[in-house]
Amino acid sequence: MRAYLAGPDVFLPDALPHAGRRAAICRRHGLEPLSPLNEDVQALSRMSEEQAWRMIYAKDVAMMEAADLCIANLTPFRGASADAGTLVELGWFLGRGKPIFGYSNSAAPFAARSVALLARVADPMPGLAVEGFGLPDNLMIPGAVEQGGGLPIFLPDRDEPFDGLAVFERCVAAAARKLGVVAPT
Amino acid sequence: MRAYLAGPDVFLPDALPHAGRRAAICRRHGLEPLSPLNEDVQALSRMSEEQAWRMIYAKDVAMMEAADLCIANLTPFRGASADAGTLVELGWFLGRGKPIFGYSNSAAPFAARSVALLARVADPMPGLAVEGFGLPDNLMIPGAVEQGGGLPIFLPDRDEPFDGLAVFERCVAAAARKLGVVAPT
Repeated sequence: MRAYLAGPDVFLPDALPHAGRRAAICRRHGLEPLSPLNEDVQALSRMSEEQAWRMIYAKDVAMMEAADLCIANLTPFRGASADAGTLVELGWFLGRGKPIFGYSNSAAPFAARSVALLARVADPMPGLAVEGFGLPDNLMIPGAVEQGGGLPIFLPDRDEPFDGLAVFERCVAAAARKLGVVAPT
Repeated sequence: MRAYLAGPDVFLPDALPHAGRRAAICRRHGLEPLSPLNEDVQALSRMSEEQAWRMIYAKDVAMMEAADLCIANLTPFRGASADAGTLVELGWFLGRGKPIFGYSNSAAPFAARSVALLARVADPMPGLAVEGFGLPDNLMIPGAVEQGGGLPIFLPDRDEPFDGLAVFERCVAAAARKLGVVAPT
């Protein structure tokens, strides 16, 4: 089964070898990885900004269409919540009825992260609610992950490095088990 | 046609009267508004946190199922990007093939907002890319909105108040026109 690997990993300075490490973990558990990387960088560099983003968008959507499931890196990115592109992709998989599994390298609850952010960057107006519920992100995210794949978001006991892969591997292993995928021997 | 009104408006201190103002704008342009508010607050207050978020999630997904289109408030919320829940919903509508229209009250490009955020809150590791392309948010968002509804994200010439409704009304009017909805006389 082909697993679309959504996440802010594409922004890492070593995105290409990092994708290779993630791909190896997937294959170890019997899943075929689909990594939304911008590998044709030479062609991209010859395009206008508008051509480039439209090509990346079309390529990523085609890759999602080809995928059987999504494994989403929901580690917070530049704000209290997960990466914006990853969240659109998560919603897309839910809308399509394809299984979703998710993990985060942050151990802190969403409410605590929101309050910490507000100490640095004030809201644009007073009185905006801070969502609680003890969840790892906005309730739509655990909701989508649990509805999509039947498992909660995988979390570490304490914060892992942004590019850590230990929780990712736990998530991949559980997704493969849940979908009845047999790992190669 | 029933328009699901996605956005961080639900976190406003005056969320209920604000939803009424948005509903009136929709009706003026011939659209029936569906506002994901937590109106049964009395019952919510008697629930556990877990019961509450699951009830809100199920209610919102049922409302999206009942909707014919989505109008998404993509104004940045607690970070460089739009509200996390709104982005999951945006992706869901794209996955379902239902029309999506979007607007923001922020005039600043995503890259500029990201750089401004990074001056206050450093990334968890060095070298993470800042996405450019001159877009109002991560490329998946304008991509989803344009693929979904055939129109770009509606933006103000300069920043509008977080709860401003002028750009919302432009977006609603354009969505109704695009879908051939006739406004009541």
